[in-house]
Amino acid sequence: MAKSKYEYVKNFELPDPCLPNCWIVVRIDGRGFSRFADIHGYVKPNDVRGLNLMTRAATCVMDEFRDICLAFGQSDEYSFVFRKDTNLFNRRASKLMTVVNSLFASSFVFHWTGFFGPIRLQYPPTFDARVVMYPTDKNLRDYLGWRQADAHVNNLYNTAFWGLVLKKGFSNTQAEERLRGTLASDKNELLFSEFGLNYNNEPPMFRKGTVLIRKLCKTPGDGKLRHVVLPFYTDLIGDMFWRENPEILGMKS
Amino acid sequence: MAKSKYEYVKNFELPDPCLPNCWIVVRIDGRGFSRFADIHGYVKPNDVRGLNLMTRAATCVMDEFRDICLAFGQSDEYSFVFRKDTNLFNRRASKLMTVVNSLFASSFVFHWTGFFGPIRLQYPPTFDARVVMYPTDKNLRDYLGWRQADAHVNNLYNTAFWGLVLKKGFSNTQAEERLRGTLASDKNELLFSEFGLNYNNEPPMFRKGTVLIRKLCKTPGDGKLRHVVLPFYTDLIGDMFWRENPEILGMKS
Amino acid sequence: MAKSKYEYVKNFELPDPCLPNCWIVVRIDGRGFSRFADIHGYVKPNDVRGLNLMTRAATCVMDEFRDICLAFGQSDEYSFVFRKDTNLFNRRASKLMTVVNSLFASSFVFHWTGFFGPIRLQYPPTFDARVVMYPTDKNLRDYLGWRQADAHVNNLYNTAFWGLVLKKGFSNTQAEERLRGTLASDKNELLFSEFGLNYNNEPPMFRKGTVLIRKLCKTPGDGKLRHVVLPFYTDLIGDMFWRENPEILGMKS
Amino acid sequence: MAKSKYEYVKNFELPDPCLPNCWIVVRIDGRGFSRFADIHGYVKPNDVRGLNLMTRAATCVMDEFRDICLAFGQSDEYSFVFRKDTNLFNRRASKLMTVVNSLFASSFVFHWTGFFGPIRLQYPPTFDARVVMYPTDKNLRDYLGWRQADAHVNNLYNTAFWGLVLKKGFSNTQAEERLRGTLASDKNELLFSEFGLNYNNEPPMFRKGTVLIRKLCKTPGDGKLRHVVLPFYTDLIGDMFWRENPEILGMKS
Repeated sequence: MAKSKYEYVKNFELPDPCLPNCWIVVRIDGRGFSRFADIHGYVKPNDVRGLNLMTRAATCVMDEFRDICLAFGQSDEYSFVFRKDTNLFNRRASKLMTVVNSLFASSFVFHWTGFFGPIRLQYPPTFDARVVMYPTDKNLRDYLGWRQADAHVNNLYNTAFWGLVLKKGFSNTQAEERLRGTLASDKNELLFSEFGLNYNNEPPMFRKGTVLIRKLCKTPGDGKLRHVVLPFYTDLIGDMFWRENPEILGMKS
Repeated sequence: MAKSKYEYVKNFELPDPCLPNCWIVVRIDGRGFSRFADIHGYVKPNDVRGLNLMTRAATCVMDEFRDICLAFGQSDEYSFVFRKDTNLFNRRASKLMTVVNSLFASSFVFHWTGFFGPIRLQYPPTFDARVVMYPTDKNLRDYLGWRQADAHVNNLYNTAFWGLVLKKGFSNTQAEERLRGTLASDKNELLFSEFGLNYNNEPPMFRKGTVLIRKLCKTPGDGKLRHVVLPFYTDLIGDMFWRENPEILGMKS
Repeated sequence: MAKSKYEYVKNFELPDPCLPNCWIVVRIDGRGFSRFADIHGYVKPNDVRGLNLMTRAATCVMDEFRDICLAFGQSDEYSFVFRKDTNLFNRRASKLMTVVNSLFASSFVFHWTGFFGPIRLQYPPTFDARVVMYPTDKNLRDYLGWRQADAHVNNLYNTAFWGLVLKKGFSNTQAEERLRGTLASDKNELLFSEFGLNYNNEPPMFRKGTVLIRKLCKTPGDGKLRHVVLPFYTDLIGDMFWRENPEILGMKS
Repeated sequence: MAKSKYEYVKNFELPDPCLPNCWIVVRIDGRGFSRFADIHGYVKPNDVRGLNLMTRAATCVMDEFRDICLAFGQSDEYSFVFRKDTNLFNRRASKLMTVVNSLFASSFVFHWTGFFGPIRLQYPPTFDARVVMYPTDKNLRDYLGWRQADAHVNNLYNTAFWGLVLKKGFSNTQAEERLRGTLASDKNELLFSEFGLNYNNEPPMFRKGTVLIRKLCKTPGDGKLRHVVLPFYTDLIGDMFWRENPEILGMKS
């Protein structure tokens, strides 16, 4: 048959399994999201609608793939952590990153109106994704610490930057210059002295990012206990979160 | 600073470049699309709205990434061919497959209503993707031949199958049994004798799938020549298509 | 210059780094060593000269590459364990496996006469090699347990097999048939009842394979303490070895 | 059984197939060969014994692996070209590079005395190896052109350098300074004016490196035609070699 003559081309598909017994992280990242935010009128420095939409899309992903035990999001990125013993798609890297990525992207569009109401989505957004493996619990926690520290650093900067621009009339360039070389303590001080803003009182979602995990919850109606994906705006760097949620690293189902 | 202590985790991100001077194919594939089609009332054996929506999403991808020189779609899959000399994202496999895949997915949802009108999208769809490299023009043409032959084989089967089910009242199992072991010629004969249908007169989009390429077109309004992504329902297996569109393999920009 | 015109071909060399923070094992394996053993008159079931030559070659490798913290050999194979934090050759898999493999092979030939004396080497031997990564200490210990269990199973079989052939006049086929389906206990019993041999009294080198590690030793002459690679014929499966040599997993230099 | 409990560790061995329909080049390279040459009294700038020993080892490799259709050597490196359709070891990259590399290394030691006679080998040498894939004949020819141009550039430099050192009493540093920034034409001129040496009359083996291919030769004795690996010191950059040996790229067995 005509078909079989061509089937040799299937041999060009090369395997790409993830090493066993490693945590698998899929991180997705918005492509060109500064422009996307501008065009859709995102509030600066943080748009609650935009962040919640990201979290809604991430929840869709976690509802679909039960082997994701935790997700962490900030700005236009989300990291999904697969249990280290997952065998989903035989741990094929391409499969894992593309199903997560496409479901995230389609969910983002699907739920747009629920968060932005009358503001129409102007064009479909693009996300990239990558797979990273972490051999130990410490490596994984350091990865999450890295992303959360990044959230903190960027948000502190952005809060100061947009304060200067929006409340003091600085141009973007002037605000950049004002902040160049400043330490975290300088920015905290500036926020307090110029805007009367205690950074530590800013919403935790802005300062910490969003952690998604599954929790047993009583279902309204039948009262049964079911696993539900819930957001937390909490510190991932210290030990407390991990002590309070031992099932995440412990890989209990 | 707190951040730097964690940055070592970046070293766990491993490189995944595609071999230079190979055609790069990204193939995306609907996940669980039988169920998706059922829930959304897709017409059997082919839903023109669904196929055109796939092509609309693929066109969005080609409009965004100019290094894709051809795309071929059938059923719930689409293959995107990057020029063999592309340097997009430094040829990183993860980047190439995830940007294509996520833009396709988000475009599918974005344009849903334009094709399905009042039929509401029930849930966001998922697609997987993979990257395959082909060293020679012949390998690439054989890949496309493989997908087109697959389209033909499946469509001939589905046309016969759904004819039996929808017009003759067969159950799915009965239709399967009736077709088991039949050759292409048997199915052609069955279609003609039972339904008066000459398979070769079926719409080329169903029989051949959809080829997307760029063509210079006069823009309405200013009359300028611009490259536009256009669909063709044509044979990719013979030489004619390649002779008539020498710029595709020739890599002329 | 002429040279530069060709240098683009260097871009076809793709990176192949090992994931950080994993144990890196390079296992080398003799190719066609049954024939090699026959031609060179290896004693059956174990040739002490041959095993010691393997260990001599492995010691050359460990003397050269200090980031190898342990090696384990049996039959015609040797496994080399690189510290999980090694940065030798930037952890490039190709480099690690080929330098180990080629130095092993050249040392094997170089030291042949020292072990086989007047028996001339008939032809240069070939070894293959592979790299395997293990994320945790437990995985590494299980890998070594796997190889040591393999040594045990094969040696018990071979001891029984060659006993039947050499001492009872069985043909190879007859010996195979006699042993087919027997358990370890059956083979122990056979060795005892037929040959008066208590398998547990066989030399540990045959039953356990050879472990190479570095130990601080007083150098004859200047009396200084230096690290020396030494062989042990000991159990790797239980905890005792690891408790007595905590520096191996502890990665102390 | 004890063994099976550990066998899960086999799953950590990841596949590494080479892309089909690409030329596979394995390049081996001496490690620390400047020191090796010094210790063994290699003649400068070229030691015929050393080069012929390299070629002898490479011939052993080609005699063993018939899917190698050409090898090219210069200085302390050798490149082995596998037919693009080889299926040896299922095209596994690790296997291909390590069997070539270890057989080369063991052959180098095995044949040492045949070339260096009374000069004893002081220690076993190490080689590294890598695998590179080339999709087209042009890419492969350019790779070989790259290595041959490299041989030329280095040999011209070394001939001038060692002329200054050995015949004019320059120190190494003085010779380096004298040659810094000189063009090929300058070095040719220097060789002619200072040493009366016409570089083009230097032995082709030094200027061009060594090409190994198989040729049908009448076997002395029975007079039968057999394929024999033969060295050529010839230009690989122009078309003549490839026209005269069409079977190499044509993949005729």
